[in-house]
Amino acid sequence: MTDYYHVDGELVPAEEATVSVRDRGFMYGDAAFETLRAYGGELFEWDAHARRLATSCTTLGFEQAVPAAAVLHERVSETLSANGLEDAYVRLSVTRGVQAGKLTPGPADPTVVVIVSELPRGGPAGEPVWDRPATVETVTTRRPPDSAVPAGAKTHNYLNGILARLELEDADEALVRTTDGHVAEGATSNVWFVADETLYTPAAELPLLPGVTRAVVFELAETAGVAVEEGHYAPATVRAADEVFLTNSTWELRPVTAIDGTEIGTGPVTDQLQQLYNSRVEKLY
Amino acid sequence: MTDYYHVDGELVPAEEATVSVRDRGFMYGDAAFETLRAYGGELFEWDAHARRLATSCTTLGFEQAVPAAAVLHERVSETLSANGLEDAYVRLSVTRGVQAGKLTPGPADPTVVVIVSELPRGGPAGEPVWDRPATVETVTTRRPPDSAVPAGAKTHNYLNGILARLELEDADEALVRTTDGHVAEGATSNVWFVADETLYTPAAELPLLPGVTRAVVFELAETAGVAVEEGHYAPATVRAADEVFLTNSTWELRPVTAIDGTEIGTGPVTDQLQQLYNSRVEKLY
Repeated sequence: MTDYYHVDGELVPAEEATVSVRDRGFMYGDAAFETLRAYGGELFEWDAHARRLATSCTTLGFEQAVPAAAVLHERVSETLSANGLEDAYVRLSVTRGVQAGKLTPGPADPTVVVIVSELPRGGPAGEPVWDRPATVETVTTRRPPDSAVPAGAKTHNYLNGILARLELEDADEALVRTTDGHVAEGATSNVWFVADETLYTPAAELPLLPGVTRAVVFELAETAGVAVEEGHYAPATVRAADEVFLTNSTWELRPVTAIDGTEIGTGPVTDQLQQLYNSRVEKLY
Repeated sequence: MTDYYHVDGELVPAEEATVSVRDRGFMYGDAAFETLRAYGGELFEWDAHARRLATSCTTLGFEQAVPAAAVLHERVSETLSANGLEDAYVRLSVTRGVQAGKLTPGPADPTVVVIVSELPRGGPAGEPVWDRPATVETVTTRRPPDSAVPAGAKTHNYLNGILARLELEDADEALVRTTDGHVAEGATSNVWFVADETLYTPAAELPLLPGVTRAVVFELAETAGVAVEEGHYAPATVRAADEVFLTNSTWELRPVTAIDGTEIGTGPVTDQLQQLYNSRVEKLY
């Protein structure tokens, strides 16, 4: 049980952690956020998360009002300490704040919210956060094109992903396509597949959120000497792959055992990348 | 100054009106809402707003958990009474509620929020809420296609409209197109134009929110004997019109005097529809 969250510059008891009903983060989803993990009290890939948060706030047009990354880091650290947590899930949100009742934004007065919850990792020998490899289903809900809502901004407008998840019969994650029918990503994860010993992932030019974990996997693949290609792929191409896995900060690398009922084996490339990821996490302990 | 809002079944002082930072309405914009006006203590077009709210909640998949329309109406009325307001702006939101920290929704436990503020009308002879007729600019931000987020659901995912408004240099409202380049609507309004004594508006099959005021205007046009056509129009067609106006619950009918710097005259069809709208409002007093 988490005892404290951090809201608008103060630690507050979790059950009293609230935002005004007139905060634009609530009224319009007018807010950016990051999901991170803490391992051994350290924030994994903090710099990359801080950069992406700044990018999201730039898209929303209020980057200049956001507290400095060091201030945000301090608030997250304070929240972890107050709860006595070293291994944790962290959600850091920055809203445009409370304003007059108009859609057109005025000057931002950001509300910063930090939510944490215990999420044990236990180093390389630890348990993954997921119970089992993932099953995936292709859904009809499509990613909005960048011309409507830039996919590179991680915001409180998450209804597209919710609608994708609501379509799932039984699977753990949705395979979401662009309006052109190319595989974009999962509802909360990036998608990877291996064929002929090459690693493939949808190109960042497509409307998808290029995850922090995705960037880490690019580095790990280079270390492992695995060739990586970005491109435009049909669901059938992913289903026919030798190995498929998903990535996000919470799941890390999560193998996929089935897409639309087609079984996929896990394999050596996924295994090797998972081991390298574990080593990278271990450095924080 | 508003003294009380209504949150989760209780009247609360406005400055203490909050939702949990773990409410999905805040975390993901996972909530539906309506904007209404009260005239003389009565809610204008309540039944139509209640129906659309139900439709939005159906799209979000939690319609069965939402309190009955009569209960929602009572909460709005209580809020107006507590503030001594008869003419007011009303925002009624229903979120999916607080749930475990996962994107995939569990059973809904809706949080209902009513925000009100004084908005004088003063009957047919009263002042409009806007200072002047609107100026409009065509923006590059496009409406998301229905395959990504159904436009007919009015939700707390309002970033698309905010991005459209942020593009405006000087205008009051954005002219937002579909990804195919057809005029869809404004950021918070439906668009109408008059040419050759016929009234035109973008077809509801396009990704747009078919407003409650839009439905009223269809009825008023019939009363006035004005022919109405719905279709797919280019911005140039709207700019070349004899009259252009915008509608939403707050603005009612708001004439447009310029689009992208091209001046538009107001005219007899807009005038006649405004008079009929005034009469309809007057019935509530």
